[in-house]
Amino acid sequence: MRGLFITIEGPDGSGKTTQMKKIEEYFTAKGYEVVITREPGGTRIGEKIREIILDKNHVEMDNITEALLYAASRAQHVAEVIKPAVENGKIVICDRFVDSSLVYQGVGRNLGVALVEGINQVAIQGIMPDITFLFKLSPQIGIQRKFSQGNEDRLEREKIDFHRRVFEGYMQLEALYPQRIRGIDASRTIQEVHEEIIGHIEELLESRS
Amino acid sequence: MRGLFITIEGPDGSGKTTQMKKIEEYFTAKGYEVVITREPGGTRIGEKIREIILDKNHVEMDNITEALLYAASRAQHVAEVIKPAVENGKIVICDRFVDSSLVYQGVGRNLGVALVEGINQVAIQGIMPDITFLFKLSPQIGIQRKFSQGNEDRLEREKIDFHRRVFEGYMQLEALYPQRIRGIDASRTIQEVHEEIIGHIEELLESRS
Repeated sequence: MRGLFITIEGPDGSGKTTQMKKIEEYFTAKGYEVVITREPGGTRIGEKIREIILDKNHVEMDNITEALLYAASRAQHVAEVIKPAVENGKIVICDRFVDSSLVYQGVGRNLGVALVEGINQVAIQGIMPDITFLFKLSPQIGIQRKFSQGNEDRLEREKIDFHRRVFEGYMQLEALYPQRIRGIDASRTIQEVHEEIIGHIEELLESRS
Repeated sequence: MRGLFITIEGPDGSGKTTQMKKIEEYFTAKGYEVVITREPGGTRIGEKIREIILDKNHVEMDNITEALLYAASRAQHVAEVIKPAVENGKIVICDRFVDSSLVYQGVGRNLGVALVEGINQVAIQGIMPDITFLFKLSPQIGIQRKFSQGNEDRLEREKIDFHRRVFEGYMQLEALYPQRIRGIDASRTIQEVHEEIIGHIEELLESRS
């Protein structure tokens, strides 16, 4: 039986990593095999691409180069990890996927969602998440949390206006795909957020059985 | 005045590097500023992408990842080097460009020329070569020359059948774009090949004046 492909979206600093671990525990306790992964990266080749994308020194990177590198990393990730795992009945939980490209490159970088969608259609080979949790946190709070850790990367250094456009881009995607994308108020406690997520997951599992 | 964008295509081992140097000498003697460059690579970011593409150990690389990485390297190359140089009146001589992707990934890898063309249209931002020299050498001879040097990379290790498909792909492109792509019999002496190339370049320069 086909597994599940779950993605988590939203600003850095919104608690995605913590919640992914808790989703993993939920599925492991139920006897499922779980694959935790992330983008950009998730494969040996993808991690090398990730290094190029996030390198603070690469200030000269063209926006289109960036969009194509994300798509290249994603293509490898889908072919090598996500597709085989889901086809073998596993639960794949992925930190960021195609929605990130649509909002960061399409909206944030002003490349346009259509251009970025076109590049990514080639990369994803028809694989889309069964459900996406969009962690909502005002961009100001997310950035502050991350900057206080003192190790922000090239994208995190972008101006606050960039992150505002990204936030609005996410809101638009949520409105466009209400079946797949579930908005989560990430300003609440870890346990509250977790319970809401599990509610959505149990609903999804019921609808499949 | 706008400069010139010249690309050289054809199998490795066909003498492209030698001829590029001789074209450079021709233009330098005439007082032009010349930029010699290559793909994949040609920029700091592009060279890092090149390393990922050509790494012998990356046997797991998906064909679509490969096509997207070539396009990413090209996008950076066009934005950072080719476009500014040509707009500033320089002569850009580039070892491989979009035609290589069309034949190696589109035909050689069976991704289809349309898919690879779509990815690359995003990357090249309307910049196409003014003239392309296609070095023709039977794929067997090119590969033998290269293998005898003992340092073949991941793509050069492909089976001879792959290189035959690439060769036929090049012939098709030449038939499709006879104005831009000039076939060159690369089995002749260095001087003979050089003279034919200069003949084409002088014709092109005259047509522009």
